[in-house]
Amino acid sequence: MITGTVVGNVWSTRRLAEIPNGAFLEIALDNTSATIVAFDVLGTGIGERVLVSTGSVAATWFGGQTPPIDALIIGSIDAPNADSSTPQSKAKTRSTQK
Amino acid sequence: MITGTVVGNVWSTRRLAEIPNGAFLEIALDNTSATIVAFDVLGTGIGERVLVSTGSVAATWFGGQTPPIDALIIGSIDAPNADSSTPQSKAKTRSTQK
Amino acid sequence: MITGTVVGNVWSTRRLAEIPNGAFLEIALDNTSATIVAFDVLGTGIGERVLVSTGSVAATWFGGQTPPIDALIIGSIDAPNADSSTPQSKAKTRSTQK
Amino acid sequence: MITGTVVGNVWSTRRLAEIPNGAFLEIALDNTSATIVAFDVLGTGIGERVLVSTGSVAATWFGGQTPPIDALIIGSIDAPNADSSTPQSKAKTRSTQK
Amino acid sequence: MITGTVVGNVWSTRRLAEIPNGAFLEIALDNTSATIVAFDVLGTGIGERVLVSTGSVAATWFGGQTPPIDALIIGSIDAPNADSSTPQSKAKTRSTQK
Repeated sequence: MITGTVVGNVWSTRRLAEIPNGAFLEIALDNTSATIVAFDVLGTGIGERVLVSTGSVAATWFGGQTPPIDALIIGSIDAPNADSSTPQSKAKTRSTQK
Repeated sequence: MITGTVVGNVWSTRRLAEIPNGAFLEIALDNTSATIVAFDVLGTGIGERVLVSTGSVAATWFGGQTPPIDALIIGSIDAPNADSSTPQSKAKTRSTQK
Repeated sequence: MITGTVVGNVWSTRRLAEIPNGAFLEIALDNTSATIVAFDVLGTGIGERVLVSTGSVAATWFGGQTPPIDALIIGSIDAPNADSSTPQSKAKTRSTQK
Repeated sequence: MITGTVVGNVWSTRRLAEIPNGAFLEIALDNTSATIVAFDVLGTGIGERVLVSTGSVAATWFGGQTPPIDALIIGSIDAPNADSSTPQSKAKTRSTQK
Repeated sequence: MITGTVVGNVWSTRRLAEIPNGAFLEIALDNTSATIVAFDVLGTGIGERVLVSTGSVAATWFGGQTPPIDALIIGSIDAPNADSSTPQSKAKTRSTQK
């Protein structure tokens, strides 16, 4: 999985009919200046840090007739102060992302 | 998904027989100098900004005997002035693409 | 799909038995100094510009028991003078590949 | 597969229900400044060097209804002094990772 | 497929039980400073140049319950002097790999 921050919505009115319900969100990836667009079914908002799975597993999640979706937000990353039980491992995580 | 702008057609007369109806379009990707070729079934024109799914999900979309297509235009991205209801989120989206 | 030019053959005498009939061709990719090896069933020659699909769709094309092939030449790109009906779009295509 | 070192945990309370039991670990990849997040079912700890498989094979390992996981730790890499029977090949391995 | 040279073994004692018989070999890729780890069932030795397929096709080759393997050595590349019948195409191949 890759990590990043939601920075905006992408709107597409003219699109394939097989796109499921959900939102296209633009993700600024950590450790790089690149952005990708991931599909969201969790109601994730702008500014949230997220875990994104890419490739065919994103489509397979929908089951049945898989949609042409190649990136899916699978979770929102907890903020550092949301869980104070493991400060050290979290500190290490942050320091590697600069 | 990745985003980019259609910059041209790619013509291939001698090709595998399993290529479906549609067009090969050259896409200049955002945030990079790279280009890829994506398959289009939406009638997308040169200059349009598009959402592209890559990998096996592009082929699976065609169903049945999947063709050897690894990139598919799944939607045309709305122009900023096409929908004035969310100016702020759109502004944020643009600013991350420079 | 990615585009490039065939620059040589790759010969492998000791290899997995499941490799189908065809040739391993080395492809110099456009827009980069990288090369990849793609499988060819079209009889493509050195110097030809080609469209290459990568990933599992390359193997799936063979049907049945898919071989361990992750890149397939799906077509030969028409030379600019082979089709004079769309000079402008072709010119645009070339200019983005520098 | 790619190799790297576990540098931290990634916590996600709000996530898709289909995530299996296990941990999200952040991996600092060898030979690059990039990090990825891989799923772990081996109880791997921070500081361990690991082998990671990416793509749909990571999900397929779980069998049945595959989860949206695109990177899986498949093994912990033995430390150089854990097996002194092949010092030379190990030395060569290390030297290529600087 | 990508090409490279085997530079070492990777040993993993604690690993998923589904890893098949064979070896993890570290491959120094051509045209880049990157290395990957590929699975080998051909008995390839250190110093040999190889063709590697990546992604799910590497796992599919094993058939049945596919293992979590995402890179497979599919052949050993013939040395230039092993086949003198096509000196010119081979020379071209070499020159593009510097």
